[in-house]
Amino acid sequence: MDTTGHSQDFIYTDWTLIESKVDFNKFPHRETVFTIGNGYLGTRGSFEEGYTQASPATFIHGVYDSVPVVYTELVNCPDWLPLIVIVDGDRFRLDQGEILSYDRQLDLLRGLISRTVRWRTPTGKTIDLSFQRFASYSDQHVLGQRCQITPVDFDGLIEIQASINGYPENQGFNHWEALDQGNIDNGIWLYRRTRNSRIEISLAARMTLSGADAPMLVTSAPGYPTLNTKFQATAQQTVTLEKIVTVFTSREVTHPIAAAQEKLAQLPSYSKLLDAHEKAWDELWQQNDIVIEGDSRAQLAVRYNIFQMLIAAPRYDEKVSIPAKTLSGFGYRGHVFWDTEIFLLPFFTYTQPNIARNLLSYRYHTLNGARRKASHDGYKGAMYAWESADTGDEVTPRWALPNDPYGEDVRIWCRDREIHISADIAYAVWYYWQATGDDEWMEKYGAEIILDTAIFWASRVEYNTKYERYEIRGVIGADEYHEFVHNNTFTNRMVQWHLEKAIIVQDWLRQNNSDRASEIEQKLGLTPGRRSRWQDIITNIWIPYDASSKLIEQYEGFFQLEDINLLEYEPRTRSMQAILSIDGANKRQVLKQPDVLMLLYLMRQSQEFPYNQENLEKNWDYYAPRTDITYGSSLGPAIHAILASDLGKTAEAYERFMQAAMVDLEDVRGNAADGIHGASAGGVWQAVVFGFGGIQLRDNQPVANPHLPPGWTRLKFKLQWRGKSHEFDLQQVRGQGGQGGQGGQGGQGGQGGQGGQEKISPLSPPSSLSSPSPSPSPSPPTSPSSLDIRGFIFDLDGVLTDTAEFHYLAWQKLADEEGLPFTRQANEALRGVSRRESLLLIIGNNKKYSEAQIQEMMERKNRYYVESIENISPADLLPGAVSFLDELRQAGIKIALGSASKNARSVIDRLGIASKIDAIADGYSVEKPKPAPDLFLFAAHQLGLQPAQCVVVEDAAAGIEAAKKGGMWAIGLGPVERVGAAHIVLPSLADATWSDIRAKLNNVATRS
Amino acid sequence: MDTTGHSQDFIYTDWTLIESKVDFNKFPHRETVFTIGNGYLGTRGSFEEGYTQASPATFIHGVYDSVPVVYTELVNCPDWLPLIVIVDGDRFRLDQGEILSYDRQLDLLRGLISRTVRWRTPTGKTIDLSFQRFASYSDQHVLGQRCQITPVDFDGLIEIQASINGYPENQGFNHWEALDQGNIDNGIWLYRRTRNSRIEISLAARMTLSGADAPMLVTSAPGYPTLNTKFQATAQQTVTLEKIVTVFTSREVTHPIAAAQEKLAQLPSYSKLLDAHEKAWDELWQQNDIVIEGDSRAQLAVRYNIFQMLIAAPRYDEKVSIPAKTLSGFGYRGHVFWDTEIFLLPFFTYTQPNIARNLLSYRYHTLNGARRKASHDGYKGAMYAWESADTGDEVTPRWALPNDPYGEDVRIWCRDREIHISADIAYAVWYYWQATGDDEWMEKYGAEIILDTAIFWASRVEYNTKYERYEIRGVIGADEYHEFVHNNTFTNRMVQWHLEKAIIVQDWLRQNNSDRASEIEQKLGLTPGRRSRWQDIITNIWIPYDASSKLIEQYEGFFQLEDINLLEYEPRTRSMQAILSIDGANKRQVLKQPDVLMLLYLMRQSQEFPYNQENLEKNWDYYAPRTDITYGSSLGPAIHAILASDLGKTAEAYERFMQAAMVDLEDVRGNAADGIHGASAGGVWQAVVFGFGGIQLRDNQPVANPHLPPGWTRLKFKLQWRGKSHEFDLQQVRGQGGQGGQGGQGGQGGQGGQGGQEKISPLSPPSSLSSPSPSPSPSPPTSPSSLDIRGFIFDLDGVLTDTAEFHYLAWQKLADEEGLPFTRQANEALRGVSRRESLLLIIGNNKKYSEAQIQEMMERKNRYYVESIENISPADLLPGAVSFLDELRQAGIKIALGSASKNARSVIDRLGIASKIDAIADGYSVEKPKPAPDLFLFAAHQLGLQPAQCVVVEDAAAGIEAAKKGGMWAIGLGPVERVGAAHIVLPSLADATWSDIRAKLNNVATRS
Repeated sequence: MDTTGHSQDFIYTDWTLIESKVDFNKFPHRETVFTIGNGYLGTRGSFEEGYTQASPATFIHGVYDSVPVVYTELVNCPDWLPLIVIVDGDRFRLDQGEILSYDRQLDLLRGLISRTVRWRTPTGKTIDLSFQRFASYSDQHVLGQRCQITPVDFDGLIEIQASINGYPENQGFNHWEALDQGNIDNGIWLYRRTRNSRIEISLAARMTLSGADAPMLVTSAPGYPTLNTKFQATAQQTVTLEKIVTVFTSREVTHPIAAAQEKLAQLPSYSKLLDAHEKAWDELWQQNDIVIEGDSRAQLAVRYNIFQMLIAAPRYDEKVSIPAKTLSGFGYRGHVFWDTEIFLLPFFTYTQPNIARNLLSYRYHTLNGARRKASHDGYKGAMYAWESADTGDEVTPRWALPNDPYGEDVRIWCRDREIHISADIAYAVWYYWQATGDDEWMEKYGAEIILDTAIFWASRVEYNTKYERYEIRGVIGADEYHEFVHNNTFTNRMVQWHLEKAIIVQDWLRQNNSDRASEIEQKLGLTPGRRSRWQDIITNIWIPYDASSKLIEQYEGFFQLEDINLLEYEPRTRSMQAILSIDGANKRQVLKQPDVLMLLYLMRQSQEFPYNQENLEKNWDYYAPRTDITYGSSLGPAIHAILASDLGKTAEAYERFMQAAMVDLEDVRGNAADGIHGASAGGVWQAVVFGFGGIQLRDNQPVANPHLPPGWTRLKFKLQWRGKSHEFDLQQVRGQGGQGGQGGQGGQGGQGGQGGQEKISPLSPPSSLSSPSPSPSPSPPTSPSSLDIRGFIFDLDGVLTDTAEFHYLAWQKLADEEGLPFTRQANEALRGVSRRESLLLIIGNNKKYSEAQIQEMMERKNRYYVESIENISPADLLPGAVSFLDELRQAGIKIALGSASKNARSVIDRLGIASKIDAIADGYSVEKPKPAPDLFLFAAHQLGLQPAQCVVVEDAAAGIEAAKKGGMWAIGLGPVERVGAAHIVLPSLADATWSDIRAKLNNVATRS
Repeated sequence: MDTTGHSQDFIYTDWTLIESKVDFNKFPHRETVFTIGNGYLGTRGSFEEGYTQASPATFIHGVYDSVPVVYTELVNCPDWLPLIVIVDGDRFRLDQGEILSYDRQLDLLRGLISRTVRWRTPTGKTIDLSFQRFASYSDQHVLGQRCQITPVDFDGLIEIQASINGYPENQGFNHWEALDQGNIDNGIWLYRRTRNSRIEISLAARMTLSGADAPMLVTSAPGYPTLNTKFQATAQQTVTLEKIVTVFTSREVTHPIAAAQEKLAQLPSYSKLLDAHEKAWDELWQQNDIVIEGDSRAQLAVRYNIFQMLIAAPRYDEKVSIPAKTLSGFGYRGHVFWDTEIFLLPFFTYTQPNIARNLLSYRYHTLNGARRKASHDGYKGAMYAWESADTGDEVTPRWALPNDPYGEDVRIWCRDREIHISADIAYAVWYYWQATGDDEWMEKYGAEIILDTAIFWASRVEYNTKYERYEIRGVIGADEYHEFVHNNTFTNRMVQWHLEKAIIVQDWLRQNNSDRASEIEQKLGLTPGRRSRWQDIITNIWIPYDASSKLIEQYEGFFQLEDINLLEYEPRTRSMQAILSIDGANKRQVLKQPDVLMLLYLMRQSQEFPYNQENLEKNWDYYAPRTDITYGSSLGPAIHAILASDLGKTAEAYERFMQAAMVDLEDVRGNAADGIHGASAGGVWQAVVFGFGGIQLRDNQPVANPHLPPGWTRLKFKLQWRGKSHEFDLQQVRGQGGQGGQGGQGGQGGQGGQGGQEKISPLSPPSSLSSPSPSPSPSPPTSPSSLDIRGFIFDLDGVLTDTAEFHYLAWQKLADEEGLPFTRQANEALRGVSRRESLLLIIGNNKKYSEAQIQEMMERKNRYYVESIENISPADLLPGAVSFLDELRQAGIKIALGSASKNARSVIDRLGIASKIDAIADGYSVEKPKPAPDLFLFAAHQLGLQPAQCVVVEDAAAGIEAAKKGGMWAIGLGPVERVGAAHIVLPSLADATWSDIRAKLNNVATRS
């Protein structure tokens, strides 16, 4: 039976992401995943040798240029990566010749990409190639690239061409005008200027060769300066080519050409540059790392998301901010949204406050753009752009234009109506100030932001004389499925909150720096009249909240919309807007992302209205089921994870968390090719720290109230608070995981939060706990000798549920589509057969397929399967499963899942038994499949038990073998022919009882 | 005094356009002007060595790819021109080092571009470079490029890099995906594919070197394959590099790579390819040339416009048509408009009917697109797209989107409303059929076009029960200044005409090919009911025509709009729409281009309703003054030229004609950088043949009724009519030019029209009549010896009018802007002083200016001057001028203008004396200025007189000297100090009489 889950080629270790296979169809996704950067620039993970399928890109903060429809975009800069190796006339390329081995790694600890390929040329020569690259974190204008070449079985002529490509493109568009290019000693340089914004750039590169003696020649195709070398290589001898590149733009220096060349001339060797880079990353991780023990997949994913935030964050530039897709892709054209302030900023505020300050200063420097927008729209003060770029002017496109000449142009209304961003920015300014105590910045920058946007709000609200209240009409709230609403509670309350804080800020400023206060009041026209009106708006703005039901209406009239049951639309692979149409979603109670819940989340930090436990529960129960959390906005899952964690919904919290954490690594939404989901990365950090870590700001310092997910044995991180570092080392207590403890009742978890006392501890060495050693217990691989059962490990498929039907239906659908004969009877022959073998059996002699077609069909069948298991419900539990689990729990026995399926977590959630399970070992937990014992050993470890204390329940021979190899007790379900090697054989769990089984095991134990 | 007119760097000879100066600011315009092509592709005239200011492009018919907003565009193909010469390390470029001489020529007769440069390197070495290029007309897949290099004063190392650039861009966008590239013997190849339309292209190139011995090396920067060579050159020895390129796309062949390489391998030498190319052009001109004698500027311009049509016309492809900007620029994205059928097609129909057939067949092959458009808009049949590309679907953009984020998006309504194109295409089909008698094509292709579009019309009209008539509401007519009108007469009448012809075509088809008739009727659902309705529409459609006034209302309600006097807006340099705004123009009686007059022009060919002389006169008088003929549509001037010629408005006809003829050469509208105005080129041909040649189709054959403009002594061309060639050789009769003879009363002109009798005469050798030899009369340069006066040649400025005031005002404006002291008194010192010297006098020691600033100021002053003389009126005639001219005319004396001004024609038109002048010699007529005699000799030649028969009237010493050098009599107006060298000196023309002057001249003659 097929239980491998959907295919992916990644191996996750604590610090390293490993790609073990080339998939040409996944190039755009993988280029995003393997992005590197240093806060100045980001470079997508394209291969040096170039492919039609590739979309290489290097983005530099602040380098924008104009473009139709979307006004301006972050410019793809000249590509520093092209490196061509020609082996006896054959150009190295993965789509010709033969790949004998392949491995690409992103080393998060060192900020380093490496790739190793053993390649056979079309004429049969074998060569090892090893590539490495980094964007220096110790000097952000420096880039390094290395290529090592070792002929394996031949002597021959090797040519290398290393270039700078002056024809980079933004999805076809080249923003650069040619200015000049030239050569220097063993090097080349290029000089370009953007067409309209007139930003100049210069790159310079030099190359050294070791292990061979050959001259370096320069050729200068216009726009493509190239360093060439050619040498006779000898079998088994390695030649190393190192290329160092410098890059400057006219944003930093007056003369980019001179700067790039002078910097290049001063640089030490590649290895010294790499050392300095690694040292810088090491220091960086000291402050930013989060250690998770017990869940290596989550561990890697969290570090990956932190890495992506760090490489996108400007360290030395306060006139730029982090685009929605960071510096890693073309999505949203490098525009900046509320994503930065609400989702990304907390990470920086609490770990790298200097970067948080830069990001917020960007909003100060773009205030004039916000003022132009307010003025253009007929308002006062500063109205921030929904999408912002270099100037702060509104750059949200007005239209989504179809390619079809008869298609409808879709008006995008966010630029006109999604106005809450001005309050979001004020919110971020406020909490940056609270967390850092950076009064100087607040005086100089922050206050003006908060006050001028407050002036905007006072001109934007309308007074409704009938109801004697202030209203805000014609907006889009946080939930973008409703495009024209009045009195969106999220917006109204955020505005009220904003004005409350504006008054506080003004008072504070008057007290602390009356000169600056006068200056700002004069500049902004902040009259007593305006301030009086702020107070009136605070008092009289309408917040649609029903005190009796505790329900908050998302906006005026939301509850009158047609209701929806999202389960009726499952399984689905598209957003509800795509399914219902824009109008259809608009008319129903379906949310793209949290809105009322988002408000509750934002008010949670200081426990302000309307946040309280009861409001959270009532509104969660109403809104969560109506939110398109899977295919709506990627901003939703992390927020739901935190709130679910608060509410003790541990399984849901973990599911939402992993949905966010894996959005790019596993391309959960299918759009990671467009770039990293920056807001999601920030949300993942918040979910770990504020959700699972339960960090709250009490008594003016961060205090933990952890709710660690099942399986997490330890969670460690540091937070900065008002100039001091606070370290948290939180541990799972026995029995806590998975029991659905109520949020806010914490303290039972391993308590961290040495608030106020500084504890700077060196970074722990990378944990290897998540990769269990083959036998944590030295007990023999035969029957355990004594009976001390404390845990049960259940296989999933065929034990707790039976997905055979779903596999059958997926195969049937595929076979029908391909016109292959297949029946339910024929399906019986596939039990225990791998996916590939199953497919070959179905194909038989009916048709000829290429390998590529076979791969595609395997993936298609799996897609059908994965889609179908989204329909699994508690009704699909096998007879006796629930009562047996309950009996075990009552007896104090811990329960783990031990399934090779990568869908295991979502399946148990849908089966409704997540709360009954203490630990999960699934398809992501270990590398070696059954019959290796690793999976069960991992599960036992998660439960904190010795193998001999565990019973494995299995329906397959390989599972029985694995259990016994691991030194555990084994119960086999099914015919003796299949599971006869188990200590006990039962037909199924129907009628199974713990007392009966204990007796039987006792017999076996005493017999042995 | 400054009389040079606006600056330009072109020299016009009969067959060759010569550019004598490099102007980096004019690159985009000059690249359009020096476009070459062969009906398969067009290549803009970019320089081989590449510049930031350049926009090189090669367009191939039918190679479209999708792009946002405008749906699809003609794709810029890989550039075959890059060729870099490095002279002892210095790269040849015109913006460094020193240009010692420069000359670029477009030889229309041979279809050849050549450029000769003597260049001094930055280190002081002098080198001659000579470039040549052609797009073979004998084999359209072949391109040739040659570079000859001669060191003048040094021996040194020369490097040459010749490339194919795989990064061409459509204004920044590169449509090509990299597929592959490689090298062949002494050559390279490139293989690319468009991103969405998936059209593959391959280019292959080889290079030979003679005069030096050096190997050819290939380097292969990705996307930029390059052939390199390097040799030691010797002073005064020429090295020649020849590059031959082949190009194929997957539109013609299955395997473009193989096709390009195989073709390349088979080709003979460069010189043989060039010979074949020149022979092909020679044959081509035999059919298409128009000879104009007496006006070398018009001669070159007409040939230039014909050349542009020929190189853009598909000879072997009936699935493409000619874009609005031909294959020469990015404007309108390669989309096809009614420009082809209404403006360009007559040229092809009457000279190259095979090409006309291809162009119309394109409309047949895109019928399905037209059907989709009709269906999408809710109509039946076929509704042609206003803008069409590869499929015939509508690709007019819906929006003009501003770059300014707060700018208004402007909806473009042509796609929805400018529906007359379906009738325009039917019109073109009908006249192609009439002219060629191509019944086979009509049966196979044409009939279906006419009938299915007729079905569309029947579904588009609406019946108005109140008025009991058919109407067509909500359209844009030919005049695009009115964007939503009802019952546009042009449209309504064209639809009526279309349905009339549809019935005829259907009847004819039934009679001649009943099978095909049945087939079409079946396919289109052409029921008797539909046909009956056509007849009803023909009978009852409303044509807003007032039989009493003869006025045709442009559309329902046009006469109720606010009236306009365009003279009140003069001088202007922008369109009336730009001045009034879209709404403002919409509300006024101002036309972008002829609409009622366009209808009259289209109905003129067969003299159908509403065309007749009286209707034409009445409606011309109404609409012509309300038409924005200068900055409205470029489609207007040629049509006005023809109708003005019909009406005997000779000067206006000529002015409009030259406005059209020079639109690209002189960049009359400032937008020639976007590409050749194809429709204008076609209009120019129609103006010559149908307007000045007065060709009408009488008794089923073309007959001439010429009205040659003043100065045109001969007009020769050939027309094809129903398989036979008709040659016309029309000559100016004495006194005819400029007398405003009425259209339709012709026959007094030299009669051509040997209708029906074939006369294929070999092409005459290029005429040199328009460049008069220095002394057509051998009379001595002193006083003529006997008195036989038959002509007067008048200088313009200071003689007939005085523009000194306009010059003064222009200088005063400039001086004020620059803060330089200047007065009316100071202006007196500038009389007779050149523009540059005048400026230097004004500047004096007041300020320092760079040479570039001085150039700019000279141009600015001239612009002010040219703008101001647009206000000249008859009131500006000097005293006595008119009566003296009238007296001379009554005495039978012929009158010419002899002015160095390039504005002379428009000035005499505005002075109202155009009808009194028989010939014009102006700033375009000759090269050498006064005191050389050339200008007056040219004038005498135009009058058909000997120099000694002419009297020159002048107010400047140089003019007197010129007259006497030319052997003419000279009258000087002004003080003896200035004009004392004249035979007679008068203070002015006030009180001058012919009898008095004759007497004085007689005295002089008898004295000598």
